[in-house]
Amino acid sequence: MTVSDCVFCKIISGQIPSLKLYEDQNVLVFLDIGPISDGHTLVVPKQHFTRLDECPAEMLGSIGACLGKISKAVAEAMNADGYNVLCNNGRAAGQLVEHLHFHIIPRKNGDGVFNRWPAYNYEKGKAEELAKKIKGKLSV
Amino acid sequence: MTVSDCVFCKIISGQIPSLKLYEDQNVLVFLDIGPISDGHTLVVPKQHFTRLDECPAEMLGSIGACLGKISKAVAEAMNADGYNVLCNNGRAAGQLVEHLHFHIIPRKNGDGVFNRWPAYNYEKGKAEELAKKIKGKLSV
Repeated sequence: MTVSDCVFCKIISGQIPSLKLYEDQNVLVFLDIGPISDGHTLVVPKQHFTRLDECPAEMLGSIGACLGKISKAVAEAMNADGYNVLCNNGRAAGQLVEHLHFHIIPRKNGDGVFNRWPAYNYEKGKAEELAKKIKGKLSV
Repeated sequence: MTVSDCVFCKIISGQIPSLKLYEDQNVLVFLDIGPISDGHTLVVPKQHFTRLDECPAEMLGSIGACLGKISKAVAEAMNADGYNVLCNNGRAAGQLVEHLHFHIIPRKNGDGVFNRWPAYNYEKGKAEELAKKIKGKLSV
């Protein structure tokens, strides 16, 4: 499925040029031209899905299976000390292009790219309550 | 493989308790007890791998395949407007537990959990140079 006004669908079809790094039957991998670190790479399914939870398990498996070798290549090429793999789903989560994509973000020690991890503790009983809600949705 | 001083290996083996949400042959899914948003969930392979690029493609495929249904359940249960799926690799990237894991972070509009996306533009020619380096590592 191609969505006519989707910028990633246009990149995949070749209507918009990209710096292609890798391609297989299911995914296109290219350099993000608005990077947050040098070598910032996008892994994108060729078929249009908006969010991860709309993508069939088989396709997600196929994307997952290639993430390792792409991450390794990106990190090595950039002499990175680490990297983030990030998939934002929904505008509330920072998703700007509404076509499922995974960011691979090479990192250097102390680069400050993401320098905030606002962790907190649950009040007593709250974690158990939330776990129950989620399990309910999973029907475990 | 179990690593004796790894907190996630201990959770997987049951030595350390967790709020388990889902489990299959390959992965354990449980609530992060130091959340950055309510319902913050961890998807962890049962076998010990430090980083994504050390994990075999088949195992990553298996993790990827379950991410959709877990994300959907977490987002629905939390009435989230969106969610991030994040895998930090290496201390430089914010990885604190050295056992591969994927965060699912439910998000609400305007919650400010991650409120910074420090994008920039490459200087002329730089993107092409980096793409060439990465492609070299992928031997495309």
